Amino acid sequence: MKNVQIYDTTLRDGMQGEGVSLSVAGKIRVALRLDEFGVDYIEGGFAASNPKDMEFFREIRMKKFKHAKVAAFGSTRHARTPVGEDQGTLKLIEAQTSVVTIFGKAWRLHVTDVLRTTEDENLAMIRDTVAYLKQRGREVIYDAEHFFDGYKDSPTYAMATLRSALEAGADCLVLCDTRGGCLPHEIADITRSVVAAVAMPVGIHCHNDAELAVANSIEAVRVGAVQVQGTINGYGERCGNANLCAIIPSLVLKLGRACRCKDNLDGLMDLSRFVDNVLNTLHVRQAAYVGESAFAHKAGMHVNAVEKNPRSFEHVPPETVGNVRRILISELSGGSNVLLKAVEMGEEISKSSPEIREVLNKLEQLEKKGYQFESADASFKILIQKVLKRHKAFFELEGYRVIVEKRGKHEPCLSEATIKVKVGNEIEHTAGEGDGPVNALDNALRRALTRFYPAIAKVALTDFSVRILDPKEATAAKTRVIIESSDGTDTWSTVGVSENIIEASWEALVDGVEYKLFKDEQAARRKRTGKNAE
Amino acid sequence: MKNVQIYDTTLRDGMQGEGVSLSVAGKIRVALRLDEFGVDYIEGGFAASNPKDMEFFREIRMKKFKHAKVAAFGSTRHARTPVGEDQGTLKLIEAQTSVVTIFGKAWRLHVTDVLRTTEDENLAMIRDTVAYLKQRGREVIYDAEHFFDGYKDSPTYAMATLRSALEAGADCLVLCDTRGGCLPHEIADITRSVVAAVAMPVGIHCHNDAELAVANSIEAVRVGAVQVQGTINGYGERCGNANLCAIIPSLVLKLGRACRCKDNLDGLMDLSRFVDNVLNTLHVRQAAYVGESAFAHKAGMHVNAVEKNPRSFEHVPPETVGNVRRILISELSGGSNVLLKAVEMGEEISKSSPEIREVLNKLEQLEKKGYQFESADASFKILIQKVLKRHKAFFELEGYRVIVEKRGKHEPCLSEATIKVKVGNEIEHTAGEGDGPVNALDNALRRALTRFYPAIAKVALTDFSVRILDPKEATAAKTRVIIESSDGTDTWSTVGVSENIIEASWEALVDGVEYKLFKDEQAARRKRTGKNAE
Repeated sequence: MKNVQIYDTTLRDGMQGEGVSLSVAGKIRVALRLDEFGVDYIEGGFAASNPKDMEFFREIRMKKFKHAKVAAFGSTRHARTPVGEDQGTLKLIEAQTSVVTIFGKAWRLHVTDVLRTTEDENLAMIRDTVAYLKQRGREVIYDAEHFFDGYKDSPTYAMATLRSALEAGADCLVLCDTRGGCLPHEIADITRSVVAAVAMPVGIHCHNDAELAVANSIEAVRVGAVQVQGTINGYGERCGNANLCAIIPSLVLKLGRACRCKDNLDGLMDLSRFVDNVLNTLHVRQAAYVGESAFAHKAGMHVNAVEKNPRSFEHVPPETVGNVRRILISELSGGSNVLLKAVEMGEEISKSSPEIREVLNKLEQLEKKGYQFESADASFKILIQKVLKRHKAFFELEGYRVIVEKRGKHEPCLSEATIKVKVGNEIEHTAGEGDGPVNALDNALRRALTRFYPAIAKVALTDFSVRILDPKEATAAKTRVIIESSDGTDTWSTVGVSENIIEASWEALVDGVEYKLFKDEQAARRKRTGKNAE
Repeated sequence: MKNVQIYDTTLRDGMQGEGVSLSVAGKIRVALRLDEFGVDYIEGGFAASNPKDMEFFREIRMKKFKHAKVAAFGSTRHARTPVGEDQGTLKLIEAQTSVVTIFGKAWRLHVTDVLRTTEDENLAMIRDTVAYLKQRGREVIYDAEHFFDGYKDSPTYAMATLRSALEAGADCLVLCDTRGGCLPHEIADITRSVVAAVAMPVGIHCHNDAELAVANSIEAVRVGAVQVQGTINGYGERCGNANLCAIIPSLVLKLGRACRCKDNLDGLMDLSRFVDNVLNTLHVRQAAYVGESAFAHKAGMHVNAVEKNPRSFEHVPPETVGNVRRILISELSGGSNVLLKAVEMGEEISKSSPEIREVLNKLEQLEKKGYQFESADASFKILIQKVLKRHKAFFELEGYRVIVEKRGKHEPCLSEATIKVKVGNEIEHTAGEGDGPVNALDNALRRALTRFYPAIAKVALTDFSVRILDPKEATAAKTRVIIESSDGTDTWSTVGVSENIIEASWEALVDGVEYKLFKDEQAARRKRTGKNAE
């Protein structure tokens, strides 16, 4: 069976997503990473419309790729314009990529209502542009825009547009569901007919407007398509493009198709996160295969079953796509999950201990107030310590004050925090500055504690997220802050909730510091016990 | 053709999603709303495992429903336990719902590895439990858990489990893809065989672990299933359940199936938002049909085409599902979009005006800094005013100071802001308190300006969102704040960006106030011009 080619359009179609944009440097980072992962084609941008994309094509030429080919994207020539004088077509040549992808119209509605030209002129536009690009040595991928809608309207005309591209020498014909509204069986039926009719490579390009883009892409491959176009994490206009992070593993693991990136499948989650980070987009926890929740078990019964046999509730082993299994803590999760965490912490506790019930009750109360421990493991461990009466307060807060001040429209905004803490019988009263109020408070807290606990100096905050819990209360709304801390060896997360963002951050900061001290003590104790046992 | 029944399990399976939980009161609000929308079945919770769910069943009995039936969820009896003594089964009766849904095992792997019993005992468990519930007058829906995986392993055994339920009197047999890993053609093939074999109503229950749950549900209906189980917005464990908000419109608008909620389809987006709000879950902008971006056009070419004929880039008219078309502003959008906004604001400007280019340049600079105007229309309009040199500063900032103070661990955290502004030649220096620093600053700003601009008193903040732009910078990260304001008549959104959350909020607050004053001035001018023209 032939390899399926993966054609990534994150850098072009993905950029049309709401809230998505990328600098040239960012685009280059993504392109290099896609090449490393083993993608076959990287569509870099729209040659005609955007100076930034043209700059990308200039810079990417200097880069060495392992395998991927870079494609410039554009359209067929304008109506009633000789192709050699068509600005868009000239820009495509100017981009100097080995591959050029152009879209043309396959649906009569677009020919008459949008292009406002004749059906014949549209066919000529396709033919001329493909031929012109072929004459200049390009590999030409022809995107038949709105192909499925066009085919449903008139199979004859839609096929005529494909034949124009084919006869002019196109290397691959890509069928596009541009409005994203076709159903899987329609995609399968129409793609099957085209594959039978054209005897050349056919590709598929789907949009997700009916939440069917992944299914539609898979169905097309199943009936004979050999190229899949999509974007990492499904970025794209409206509801997005077909999500390659969901398509690739299903093609490889379920449909048994080979593709170049097959051997790097265990790097898929990292790739997904990397692109999220470069695009500054929130990671979708629920995403298939690569989401943080994709292999997270919450229901007590499921946790129980997965412990007996992971296959019972996991459709593929998480590690095949670079993901990991997670056990979640919540009021729904029941005793097994709490027990697992407690044992992980070295507590000697059994399933029937009354403390397990007590932890669940406390959890329920706090969840009602807006706390969430699923992503704040360290705060949950501190909570268990408190219920078991093993919690040690490493310091006591006497008070803090945070001041943010601006002395004129164009003056910088200054943040300063003072803090007073008691450790044993000693009082420490100190201050810190920062880029914002939370940063200042964080700096002051570290400074106050480092004298007593030098290990604190090693802790750095590595992530900070803010969630407004009842946005309709606007600036008086409850805020949940989750902070991730790291000491270079371990990483842990903590949570705080309050109407006051400073207070919520403070809670999370304190848990973050306390967890570090608790963790170090525990490690020291283990070491001692180990020695005693010798 | 028979109606398709919509079976909602948001309140049961949806609650197993990471970060999702709901109080009894919240569950009741959702149930009433689902009934109003026209859902056929509402699965309220797990009778055996959760006291909160039992309380829900008690309370929901007092409520009057228009059409929906409430179902209690549970499992077949335990192995080697007489059904009349099985605690889970007794709880199902205690829930006093007219419908009971129980799941049983269809896959031998679960029988041996998870239940650790024999294949025959599993069949008896199914038979006994269904019969017991039927004898007590319940409508019994039988969820065949892991049916597709079970069928792939052994069609004979999987069918034997269905027959046990059928012979004991089950009213509907629901085929579940519990691991969420089956492909659309597998679902279609297996469902088709079952429908042909059992001659009774068959339902479908899919999970989204391969991003295929919507497609799989639609395929099952296409080949004969008459009940679809899923959740609003696709909440659920791991990657979620089949998303009813994507399935219902495709069934009605594309597959031509009737269902009870068909007439309320234009309330779908409101329903989706309502449940998001009650669950306190972030709205997914990209969601099919109901997402804020679902009909948002960004690419200049698309905007242009949609203006000529909306069908060109919209698979269904947005109003059929209660959504609206939106035109987005970004560096990609090109002149047409900017022009549209400017004209909307009453500016006399043409496509060739140099100001259009100037606005686009400014936009690009600001987007690089982290600003986003797609969701901050009012800030964008102020930006246009600034470029056109029509912007009027209604006041000047001389300075502000925000203090957050806590004087002991258990003391409340106080927030106070002082502010000094200049309006014309007058200085106003005043202060405000609040639940948090931004709330205090907001209060102080209003107080300072109301003397000069009484209309400000009518403005209330209605939404507030915070986005950390580079989370890895932790508390020193850049923050984007988006604020929604309303004066009772209109609603508008503004944006601010800074490393300091207070400063970012300040920018958005100022734009919010200025936009109100600008809008009022413009309305007054229109009124005058109107009068002059008389």
